[in-house]
Amino acid sequence: MTRFSFSLQSTDGRARAGEITTTHGVIPTPIFMPVGTYGSVKAVGPDDLLALGAKIILGNTFHLHERPTEALVEQLGGLHEMIRWPGAILTDSGGFQVFSLAKLAKINDEGVAFQSPIDGSPRYFSPEIVMEIQRRLGSDICMVFDQCPPGQADREAVKKAMERTTAWARRCRDVQMKPHQAVFGIVQGQIHEDLRLAHLEEIVALDFDGYALGGLSVGEPIEDMVRILRAVTHQMPATKPRYLMGVGTPLDLLHGIENGIDMFDCVMPTRNARNGQLFTSDGVLVIRNAKHKDSPEPIDPDCPCSTCRAGFSRAYLRHLFVAGELLYFRLASVHNLHFYLDLVTHARAAILDGSFDAFAAAFRARYRQRKEPEATS
Amino acid sequence: MTRFSFSLQSTDGRARAGEITTTHGVIPTPIFMPVGTYGSVKAVGPDDLLALGAKIILGNTFHLHERPTEALVEQLGGLHEMIRWPGAILTDSGGFQVFSLAKLAKINDEGVAFQSPIDGSPRYFSPEIVMEIQRRLGSDICMVFDQCPPGQADREAVKKAMERTTAWARRCRDVQMKPHQAVFGIVQGQIHEDLRLAHLEEIVALDFDGYALGGLSVGEPIEDMVRILRAVTHQMPATKPRYLMGVGTPLDLLHGIENGIDMFDCVMPTRNARNGQLFTSDGVLVIRNAKHKDSPEPIDPDCPCSTCRAGFSRAYLRHLFVAGELLYFRLASVHNLHFYLDLVTHARAAILDGSFDAFAAAFRARYRQRKEPEATS
Repeated sequence: MTRFSFSLQSTDGRARAGEITTTHGVIPTPIFMPVGTYGSVKAVGPDDLLALGAKIILGNTFHLHERPTEALVEQLGGLHEMIRWPGAILTDSGGFQVFSLAKLAKINDEGVAFQSPIDGSPRYFSPEIVMEIQRRLGSDICMVFDQCPPGQADREAVKKAMERTTAWARRCRDVQMKPHQAVFGIVQGQIHEDLRLAHLEEIVALDFDGYALGGLSVGEPIEDMVRILRAVTHQMPATKPRYLMGVGTPLDLLHGIENGIDMFDCVMPTRNARNGQLFTSDGVLVIRNAKHKDSPEPIDPDCPCSTCRAGFSRAYLRHLFVAGELLYFRLASVHNLHFYLDLVTHARAAILDGSFDAFAAAFRARYRQRKEPEATS
Repeated sequence: MTRFSFSLQSTDGRARAGEITTTHGVIPTPIFMPVGTYGSVKAVGPDDLLALGAKIILGNTFHLHERPTEALVEQLGGLHEMIRWPGAILTDSGGFQVFSLAKLAKINDEGVAFQSPIDGSPRYFSPEIVMEIQRRLGSDICMVFDQCPPGQADREAVKKAMERTTAWARRCRDVQMKPHQAVFGIVQGQIHEDLRLAHLEEIVALDFDGYALGGLSVGEPIEDMVRILRAVTHQMPATKPRYLMGVGTPLDLLHGIENGIDMFDCVMPTRNARNGQLFTSDGVLVIRNAKHKDSPEPIDPDCPCSTCRAGFSRAYLRHLFVAGELLYFRLASVHNLHFYLDLVTHARAAILDGSFDAFAAAFRARYRQRKEPEATS
């Protein structure tokens, strides 16, 4: 069995191109990971994901624990087998969801008691429990259980969360996972550069297979996120993959890549698709807008995704969206996922070519041109 | 341009195998037509339909008139072009919908005033208007505007509707359609054999490209439908396609085929899929049932549809259904449509082989075996 590994292939400034090897395939980096919360990337199938060239998707430990439960997933042969996905899977630890979505009952150094978001019944997560869930899910990359403080948390609360996250990371590291499973540490510290760097040192000392930045894109101004990326990312171990959790917009991805991030995940391409916001090289297109009502144009004439290539017009997609037709969600989600995967693919090619800055500048110049306002969901 | 034509290839008892030729392909009969009300067969794409071997789908004149409107469809190049469907399309006339779904304002021999189901604004359909809508939609087979009385209508009301339907059929016939468009007449008369036969004679005298039985499967007992099929179908012109509108269950299709019907349409495979009812050779499987909760089996181990072949388990499909995941709708709809298309394909092969009775008997014996009750939506 191929053990998890990472090789750095090329750098261009701080931007990196590399390869992650897993038992479920080789993942070129930088990479974007479509999010499959409940074991399904919303509205698309494994066939669509393969056609899109996706290499790794994300599953949510918090949600899969609720349903169908890790016991059932394991009984069905693991997450890959259950969802019929031959590529790699990363599972988050549920830390972010426990602290942002769940009704907390009690939190202490041992773990967190909270209520099921489905039926309100009692739940308990500890570092050991969370790793056990991920072990049973069988994902290729598992994340340590972290305490993710809210975006507006004060410095003392951030420090307390860091300390707990370090202690939990150590306990997670000591859990025996399956041979093919890699474990990533998570760095907290929010928007405080000194805390980020201090926490990075603590987590790196525990020696994980990769390192993630958590607690960004949680409501802080974009400038704060970019400042942290600039101060912290290049200090992360060069020989391990670097993962920016839950980020973000196409421009956020560029910020991450140019500072040396290798991995991203975000619900934005699929969620925005369902809300009628479609990504194009010129910016976001709001399909409901009346101006698209009789447009025979594809979403993006330059786009080679299956939706655009098949010739589905903006007018037809708008009609499907307005009529609530289920086909819309698949066509739009495929397009948006293609946009994200295409962005990292081209960024990688530019890094290998030594032209990342020019690529990023051209992307930003064109992406920002568009006048159409971005509707919020 | 290939004008519409029908050729009868073989008979087996009253069952027929034939071929309909249209400018959008050759359609082997008996055939099942998936229903694409608003210009989309719910939850599946043209790629799925092609993979399923679908040859002709149905669009609803009543609904497409509301949105996106025939004017927009025409502007976008017609219905085939708009929905990116290379196969054939049949449009109904809206008669059934006007009389069953719409709030009627006024009906007389000239036409019907009713309210838009979307916003309540006034609408008016006459035979000429309905044919003009279908002309602009550009479908391959257009249906005449008929008055479809409710299932519980008394004999006098049925006779009145027949008279009006005949007068309207004559007016529809006199509308100039596009060269590639065929027009089918509709026979009413409900469950009265003598009225059916009398109306058939009137409609056939008007000389259409095909003939449909309307007003069946509208709430009458199954025995009444079968009685009418036995009495009427074989009296329909042998040289023209015979279409049983809006029917029905798999067993209804068998009744139709063995009495000489060539064409069927029904929302059942897609609607029931969305409601969690999946068709199998053994009968209907209700995916929500607890007994499927941890089943690693595909929906139907003998089924070669893409959903079953890909190995999606009942347990996973149940999970997707319970979680409301959009992927469920596509996987389930593909399976159910495959079941219907497979049924007519095998029926056709049996007719050509002279073994239709044995095929029907074997299908019924197995299909009825199943004990699981059919949940209603």
